Amino acid sequence: MLINFMPKEFNFFDLFDKQVEYAVTAAKYFKELVAKGAIDDASLQKMRDIEHDADDAAHSIIANLNKTFITPFDREDIHTLAKEVDDIPDMINTIVSRLHIYKIKGVDTKLVEFAAVIEQSTVAVACAVNGMRNSKHAKKVTDCCVEINRLENVGDAMRDAALAELFENEKDPIEVIKRKEIYQDAETVLDVCEDIAHMVESILVKQA
Amino acid sequence: MLINFMPKEFNFFDLFDKQVEYAVTAAKYFKELVAKGAIDDASLQKMRDIEHDADDAAHSIIANLNKTFITPFDREDIHTLAKEVDDIPDMINTIVSRLHIYKIKGVDTKLVEFAAVIEQSTVAVACAVNGMRNSKHAKKVTDCCVEINRLENVGDAMRDAALAELFENEKDPIEVIKRKEIYQDAETVLDVCEDIAHMVESILVKQA
Amino acid sequence: MLINFMPKEFNFFDLFDKQVEYAVTAAKYFKELVAKGAIDDASLQKMRDIEHDADDAAHSIIANLNKTFITPFDREDIHTLAKEVDDIPDMINTIVSRLHIYKIKGVDTKLVEFAAVIEQSTVAVACAVNGMRNSKHAKKVTDCCVEINRLENVGDAMRDAALAELFENEKDPIEVIKRKEIYQDAETVLDVCEDIAHMVESILVKQA
Repeated sequence: MLINFMPKEFNFFDLFDKQVEYAVTAAKYFKELVAKGAIDDASLQKMRDIEHDADDAAHSIIANLNKTFITPFDREDIHTLAKEVDDIPDMINTIVSRLHIYKIKGVDTKLVEFAAVIEQSTVAVACAVNGMRNSKHAKKVTDCCVEINRLENVGDAMRDAALAELFENEKDPIEVIKRKEIYQDAETVLDVCEDIAHMVESILVKQA
Repeated sequence: MLINFMPKEFNFFDLFDKQVEYAVTAAKYFKELVAKGAIDDASLQKMRDIEHDADDAAHSIIANLNKTFITPFDREDIHTLAKEVDDIPDMINTIVSRLHIYKIKGVDTKLVEFAAVIEQSTVAVACAVNGMRNSKHAKKVTDCCVEINRLENVGDAMRDAALAELFENEKDPIEVIKRKEIYQDAETVLDVCEDIAHMVESILVKQA
Repeated sequence: MLINFMPKEFNFFDLFDKQVEYAVTAAKYFKELVAKGAIDDASLQKMRDIEHDADDAAHSIIANLNKTFITPFDREDIHTLAKEVDDIPDMINTIVSRLHIYKIKGVDTKLVEFAAVIEQSTVAVACAVNGMRNSKHAKKVTDCCVEINRLENVGDAMRDAALAELFENEKDPIEVIKRKEIYQDAETVLDVCEDIAHMVESILVKQA
């Protein structure tokens, strides 16, 4: 008789799937917002709600981790992965909040480009995390991780070009302060995705 | 016969109590300094001394950790907690040092408000850490952690309001650069306190 | 019969020696570049190549770690050390990239001073890491770690002085934004070296 050591409510793969879903929701909503070009109070609140739901999903993983003896992979890795996935909606929410506080008006085409890459990378993160539950998906997971790494390089180049243009053309220092921080934050989301790809790859290698 | 595996000089709870005491001292002195509104050389040195004592307390925990087989809770958690508690005086010292280097004169009412919340949060951190040694204090520890989380949210709102006002009213970009960094640093102290609350809660759950 | 559990290609000490060598190469090239005072496309590419080689060395350590049961010291510590050593060329590359993007021309004497200290500290990091393989070198390792800590304090004072002078004399806010970030980055390299020294010391104590 096989005993199911992990009751359904403690299934870490289900919890991670839910968590990355919130990350994708945050990325998609971010793309929508920067295309509109101004953050009103309702949009700000909706983004905070998504971030809050994502936060609950992360806490749920960590709470279950502390109560469970048997985990599908290394405890430390579960903890790190949950925290890293949580950094995606967290950082996106920070950017939206800054756009609001800094009263940035109008569509910033650089940010529109960043939002598209962030969405792609977050979808690839969901692919990688979803695939962890079954070793038959190893090839697909690896492909998604390669894609995440590629998008991080794309993001680096986009940030460098955006900053070079900003310092070249923008003469208002206050505007430089605001946009510089936001472009660097946008690139940070892609760094976070890359950290997750490294974590997922490392978990797969240990289980092989 | 019961053998005391942990000699008095290696009592981690005593060491943590001492460490959080330095964090509270740093927070109280910070509140005093920002109320006066200018950092002279003597104040700068006194803050550095507090930070240095706190640093020694952190090193003492880590040194004992490396020499001891038996620890009251998870080794990794002791290491992380010691580093996180050390971040409080470290970050406060950084802010004081910046106020001095940037030659910020006059009382900044935003910073006075931040200092009050930082003091409250640091006192709550001390309460949470002090309570770890006895499971009878679990309820009190949890209450302190809830309070730390609440104060982090208060700090977020304070930083957002301070930055919005700064960008609205301050026309000197150099002044914007200075104050923006200091408000963001002040909020970081509250983030550090929240990390500690999460760590303490996680330690308690594992021991339950 | 003694069995060699660690085949030559998995010798972590060799891999770490190679990794710190790249860190030293990055530091030396950085010193050369800032003495010339302008980053052309070829220099930028060469620095990226060094950073890329260093990155490969870090990945090689982590990949071997995931495949190996027997490690010369704590698995978590190997992982952390590899990541921390990788932060040296990574941060140096970031600075060089910023000098290029921000189109900073001319020799910045503050940066020349920083580069000299960064080189000294990185050489001391190599000394500490090289010495880990043999307990007979414990005294030398400790001396190098003390030197790294000393240089971190030197760097703190250099950054504070550089920022104080920048805010005192530079009236162009855009220039302040650029140089402030670069001086703070330069000091961060020395913080990274100090983290490595703490890690090496902690590994040695555990093995004693």
